[in-house]
Amino acid sequence: MTDAAVRRRSGGRAGNRDRRGGEIFRQQPWGPVKNIDRPVEPLGEEGVQAIHDGAMRVLEEIGVEFLNDEALALFRQAGCTVEGTNVRMGRDWVMEMLARAPSQFTLTPRNPDRVITVGDGSLLFGNVSSPPAYWDMTMRTKSPGTRVQCADLLRLTQHFNCMHFAGGYPVEPVDIHPSVRHLDVLFDKLTITDKVPHAYSLGAERVEDVLEMVRIAGGLTEEAFRATPRMYTNINSTSPLKHDTPMIDGCLRCIRRGQAVIVTPFTLAGAMAPVTMAGAVTLSIAEALSAIALFQWVAPGSACVLGTFTTNVDMTSGAPAFGTPEYMRATQMTGQMARFYGLPLRSSGVCTSNAPDGQAMWETSNSLWAAVQSGTHMIYHAAGWLEGGLIACPEKFVMDCEVVQMIQRYMDPAICATGPDEIAVEAIRDVGSRGHYFGAEHTRARYETAFYTPFVSDWRNFEAWSADGGVWTQERAHRLFRRIVEEFEEPPMDVAIREELAEFVARRKAEGGAPTDY
Amino acid sequence: MTDAAVRRRSGGRAGNRDRRGGEIFRQQPWGPVKNIDRPVEPLGEEGVQAIHDGAMRVLEEIGVEFLNDEALALFRQAGCTVEGTNVRMGRDWVMEMLARAPSQFTLTPRNPDRVITVGDGSLLFGNVSSPPAYWDMTMRTKSPGTRVQCADLLRLTQHFNCMHFAGGYPVEPVDIHPSVRHLDVLFDKLTITDKVPHAYSLGAERVEDVLEMVRIAGGLTEEAFRATPRMYTNINSTSPLKHDTPMIDGCLRCIRRGQAVIVTPFTLAGAMAPVTMAGAVTLSIAEALSAIALFQWVAPGSACVLGTFTTNVDMTSGAPAFGTPEYMRATQMTGQMARFYGLPLRSSGVCTSNAPDGQAMWETSNSLWAAVQSGTHMIYHAAGWLEGGLIACPEKFVMDCEVVQMIQRYMDPAICATGPDEIAVEAIRDVGSRGHYFGAEHTRARYETAFYTPFVSDWRNFEAWSADGGVWTQERAHRLFRRIVEEFEEPPMDVAIREELAEFVARRKAEGGAPTDY
Repeated sequence: MTDAAVRRRSGGRAGNRDRRGGEIFRQQPWGPVKNIDRPVEPLGEEGVQAIHDGAMRVLEEIGVEFLNDEALALFRQAGCTVEGTNVRMGRDWVMEMLARAPSQFTLTPRNPDRVITVGDGSLLFGNVSSPPAYWDMTMRTKSPGTRVQCADLLRLTQHFNCMHFAGGYPVEPVDIHPSVRHLDVLFDKLTITDKVPHAYSLGAERVEDVLEMVRIAGGLTEEAFRATPRMYTNINSTSPLKHDTPMIDGCLRCIRRGQAVIVTPFTLAGAMAPVTMAGAVTLSIAEALSAIALFQWVAPGSACVLGTFTTNVDMTSGAPAFGTPEYMRATQMTGQMARFYGLPLRSSGVCTSNAPDGQAMWETSNSLWAAVQSGTHMIYHAAGWLEGGLIACPEKFVMDCEVVQMIQRYMDPAICATGPDEIAVEAIRDVGSRGHYFGAEHTRARYETAFYTPFVSDWRNFEAWSADGGVWTQERAHRLFRRIVEEFEEPPMDVAIREELAEFVARRKAEGGAPTDY
Repeated sequence: MTDAAVRRRSGGRAGNRDRRGGEIFRQQPWGPVKNIDRPVEPLGEEGVQAIHDGAMRVLEEIGVEFLNDEALALFRQAGCTVEGTNVRMGRDWVMEMLARAPSQFTLTPRNPDRVITVGDGSLLFGNVSSPPAYWDMTMRTKSPGTRVQCADLLRLTQHFNCMHFAGGYPVEPVDIHPSVRHLDVLFDKLTITDKVPHAYSLGAERVEDVLEMVRIAGGLTEEAFRATPRMYTNINSTSPLKHDTPMIDGCLRCIRRGQAVIVTPFTLAGAMAPVTMAGAVTLSIAEALSAIALFQWVAPGSACVLGTFTTNVDMTSGAPAFGTPEYMRATQMTGQMARFYGLPLRSSGVCTSNAPDGQAMWETSNSLWAAVQSGTHMIYHAAGWLEGGLIACPEKFVMDCEVVQMIQRYMDPAICATGPDEIAVEAIRDVGSRGHYFGAEHTRARYETAFYTPFVSDWRNFEAWSADGGVWTQERAHRLFRRIVEEFEEPPMDVAIREELAEFVARRKAEGGAPTDY
């Protein structure tokens, strides 16, 4: 459907498009990406065992706080030791529960062509989620997010084939009242994109509203909706060692209706977690597994993802730092643990920088390569994040998509094919020592698809680039951002479904939306 | 000696220094870096065998042009088939010659504390080499390089502990006449730095002059100079399938006096090499091995490094592109071949960008991580390169050094230690679910060295960063660059040696320097 929409669109505005045949620029095609690299594994077997044993000791001897009465009752039912809000659980039970979790599952959004598989070597990227503020090259100042900005960022999410799923709000639209914000943003998300959507676990009403809207958008009966995951929620624990009421509640609601959950402790080494990276990973694993074990008790076989967000603080300020060497190693170590437990992994594309500049890109590159090296299946915040996640930036979004696309192309096994045609001894013989390969038949037969084609990188020489204004990357990204949102057309949606969604939003608004005292 | 110089220096200008105790900023310490990651290996055994077989067929059936009479005579002597300038050689002989090459060796500059080991997992970084032009944030225009700029970039090379060796001229000083340029720049290099130096293979006189100056700078007898490598040369073949007169001549002069050589074909897939990456690597391997086999015939056991500079062109313009997915895979494939032949590997830090912006840093990150993933031992151009190597940029130099330092810190096994103290169950118990780790004894005992400390990255939040001017990375890098060169003090050199060097330069200038009709 997407391709059809692009083609239809191109007919009407051919004059505005360049020679690439109706698209604003040539992209990597939509489709699954398989991570074909062996993961980087800094831990030996004894290291994996040490973190596992540490995490199990935390769960057995220290316990995790669950500020959720239903969870406490469920843990009691399962035979765990519950004292007040503290829950301790034996490793045998935890491992028995983890054995129920699938190592891979699918997520099927309203456009079934956009189905993704989480696990089995998949490499899936999603947009920046949840920054409260926005910055772009026009404003050049940080300001609270708006619905318009949020929608623009969703247009980028939809536009780029390298974005496989829609994360949380790409910027928090604080111009919408919190009681109805989820209704408006989900309406926008479900009409602007046709990719896998997300629900915040911020109170029963919000979660149930989103579940219902995703069901409506898919044109699904309740039975069909429950049959296979259509969406997911992502929760953070409140490190150290605490799961809050709405987070657990939201997950329970999702898994009971057959949807997926990601549990991502935010374990800042030196602040809310031990200063040692192995200690921070141990704490993160204990916190994540305690929740995942609960979900497997409640809904055996439900789709659960181990999330990692372990990084270090800047010890001079106590503020989180991202894309650091310690972050990379923590991500890789957690990858080893995810494989040990047989769970899919989520990590992130992150940076500390306040502007879409060099620092932003080396930090983001470090984190995205760490995701690859760790065997991560879902990469959150892969496009658009600045200032440790406090700012959403559309130029950064466009720039990140170039890096993400390059990673996707990098995973194409064709690059390293070594058949006789690729070794090319005959072409080498034909050209000899006096010619060149530009005109060779071997080249002409392959050149159109032989190499990655960039869309925001400028590969011209200095003189050509200068003569054309000497435009730096962030400004080129800005121009592409504007063009993408101005020429954007929504993916097709059945008129009746769109009306049903709008009616649902209107009804729930009339009812007052969700309580805001969560 | 370096540390002593820093300490001495810090006494005199304490007022200009910050709280870091006399240094401009805290660096990673000087010292060897070991690559502890398993290499990324896109080729299976049969892929390695296919490239090997292809390269051997090129050498056996097609041959390589050697535009050097001495080399042709040597190949004849060795029993190779020489027809005109075309040399064909059997795989048995090639492999026999390669078996003579050491898999590791040391390079000992005038300051023996700066000795480096090439091979055995070493990860060594050097400055940008050979750009004809210069760009900085003050000028903001591209202009031919000068001796002053070249010296400033050498000061950066010396300043940064993460730079292990000095490459070629960090910018070509075209304000010095070519006949004496090598004399002036080598005098600058040998006095400004005490790290491993390099000689261009651009004619007999130049090479012999540099060999002699390095010997003098080390205070060495000819015998001591020859006893172990003190310096190196790097040559490029003229792809496809050609080695030029001065390059081979320079290498022969170096190995006969016990110095090291790097052979780096510049195989641009789609232009001067097959459009398929495996084909381009095959050509590169054939070109490099033909020269290395010759050198091992002449000087068995001489220090030879396999260089890779295989990348793809932009098929819309034919211009080289750097830091691409294809570049990364070619580098990794060549790493597999280097291990197959038992040779140390050289690759590069590269980018296509014309400015020190986001694109520059994602391209550079891609190439530096590819170097790590390939098991590269010497990383050329690791700091300061722009516009496909046509521009040297001091701000980029400073920015790249942050990335290089992070890679070095990343290789510290301490990050992933998993002893009981690092797993930290007792610290997790002590802090429980209600405290934090800032004040914990476990944290306080470790926080000063727990995490990487950046020097050009700004990790403050947006508000603090904005209040301080909202300075972007390239401008921060510019300020550091100026401060480093303004406060720079040369490493100690014996006065008599300095005079002997100056006299050598004066004498050779009086003799007219080197011919310029090479």
